[in-house]
Amino acid sequence: MSVYTPVDVPQLQDFLDQYAVGELEHYQGISAGITNTNYFVDTTLGRWVLTIFERASADELAFYMALMDHLAGLGLPTAHPVARSDGGFLSRLAGKPAALVYRLDGASIVRPTPALCASLGAVVAEQHRAVASFNRTADNPRGLEWALRTRDALAPKMRPSALALLDDELAFQQRQPTDKLPRGVIHADLFRDNVLVRGDRITGLIDFYYACSNVLLFDLAVICNDWCHDDELHLLADNWQALAGAYDHRRPFTEAEHAAWPGQLRAAALRFWVSRLYDWHFPRDGEVTHQKDPAPFGHLLQAHRDAPPPLL
Amino acid sequence: MSVYTPVDVPQLQDFLDQYAVGELEHYQGISAGITNTNYFVDTTLGRWVLTIFERASADELAFYMALMDHLAGLGLPTAHPVARSDGGFLSRLAGKPAALVYRLDGASIVRPTPALCASLGAVVAEQHRAVASFNRTADNPRGLEWALRTRDALAPKMRPSALALLDDELAFQQRQPTDKLPRGVIHADLFRDNVLVRGDRITGLIDFYYACSNVLLFDLAVICNDWCHDDELHLLADNWQALAGAYDHRRPFTEAEHAAWPGQLRAAALRFWVSRLYDWHFPRDGEVTHQKDPAPFGHLLQAHRDAPPPLL
Repeated sequence: MSVYTPVDVPQLQDFLDQYAVGELEHYQGISAGITNTNYFVDTTLGRWVLTIFERASADELAFYMALMDHLAGLGLPTAHPVARSDGGFLSRLAGKPAALVYRLDGASIVRPTPALCASLGAVVAEQHRAVASFNRTADNPRGLEWALRTRDALAPKMRPSALALLDDELAFQQRQPTDKLPRGVIHADLFRDNVLVRGDRITGLIDFYYACSNVLLFDLAVICNDWCHDDELHLLADNWQALAGAYDHRRPFTEAEHAAWPGQLRAAALRFWVSRLYDWHFPRDGEVTHQKDPAPFGHLLQAHRDAPPPLL
Repeated sequence: MSVYTPVDVPQLQDFLDQYAVGELEHYQGISAGITNTNYFVDTTLGRWVLTIFERASADELAFYMALMDHLAGLGLPTAHPVARSDGGFLSRLAGKPAALVYRLDGASIVRPTPALCASLGAVVAEQHRAVASFNRTADNPRGLEWALRTRDALAPKMRPSALALLDDELAFQQRQPTDKLPRGVIHADLFRDNVLVRGDRITGLIDFYYACSNVLLFDLAVICNDWCHDDELHLLADNWQALAGAYDHRRPFTEAEHAAWPGQLRAAALRFWVSRLYDWHFPRDGEVTHQKDPAPFGHLLQAHRDAPPPLL
């Protein structure tokens, strides 16, 4: 969510006049994340997050809005998109598609406790139950086909040993059967900075802009990699057991999921290794950008190939 | 919102299991208001208000849920009803219709400042603009026909001078033309205890269970009577001017509304005088009840007949 698109006050007030949110009081760019432009916007009637979409297609955006509306409508701690009076969620700002969503309380945290991990496990389980009644699907924009394409762009830039690891893992993932695994629309990017927290309570899952149809287990693999490993990439076993246990309590894991877990952990490490390698070697222009070091995900992938932690 | 319907833990957990809100942590009856039973309910995933409807029909409830969903969806500070996975808002609990809504932050306040009144004026103006895109209507359950019927029940209980005032006012209201006044679905009960506040900001309009199609001005008359008069029924002119000015800025008053204002102020005083007289003389049973003294609304009606404050 770097600030790629600047917005001035008259532009923003015109945008806000399409909604029943009162008048602009204050706004501020949010310099976190890597895909869209985001602002905190305070009006006389509330606090909002404005997102200007930098790359998504109209179909993708309609899918994201419907998903956010569905999940928030079911009571999950996710942000409601704000409708204009005519019912639409998407508007245009600075020539790009844009949406206004409720700003949730809470803040991201760096070092989660086991109690917080248990809360997250419960929330993600409810989310995975809730998407059973969501009747849209969307292709995974960061699936294996994307990884294979991106490998070709990266190949000239990579050291031979790293490229060999990448190629071997891509071959492994192509052999993994996933047809027996429970599927649904998942968040697919539940890093700590996409989860808002107050105390031991989850107050918000945010940034659904990689949500797609996939195996449910992939969400947990992303979480396990980010929430439950320390900076030396050692498993934080208390965190993971609390999280997986709370999840399993609301949505019990199947036998097939137990069997597929090591492969999904590797798939999640691979996905972020590849995307970070790409952003590292092919950076975009922007007012403020945050590049993330790809190396830890390469190391984590190797660690999971050597000794993956159990699902439960 | 007295507690007419007790609920035990297994009943409540079964009810909550229909929603994606996690597990029951704590609940507590709310002993305020006079129409429905309300509980604060905390679950592992959030904080909610559970309302058990004591008197409303299925049609009325469907209307309330659609209205709350519409207004909250537009970003107004009102509570979203929580949908079950199958999309419905209404469930049954203890043999009665019941709904779960998001619990909003903030608290009611007794002595509003002019700054807060300006915030309320802006919110109510946005609400009145927002209902233009709401395509349902509902009869006013506390309109003039109801007042005339209720007068007959009250007549044997009232002192002759009070009954004479009531009869004269009912005759006056029947002569008032309202066909030139802007109409829409209004809240119709915006007393201070139905508005949540933090600092000078409105965080919630709650308890939409008297919402109906009516002249928009009636909402402002209810507010002027409750928010902008002191205990001796003197106008708090600073509060009212701040409120009406902020409203007029977003939804300018028409000439017809200026002319109709004294009559609407009287109509709002009459409506609550009559309902409180009825509740006083014909109380309902309940675990906890709060009866409100009808006398101030009789006095306020008389004061408005003598010298109504201007609209702006």
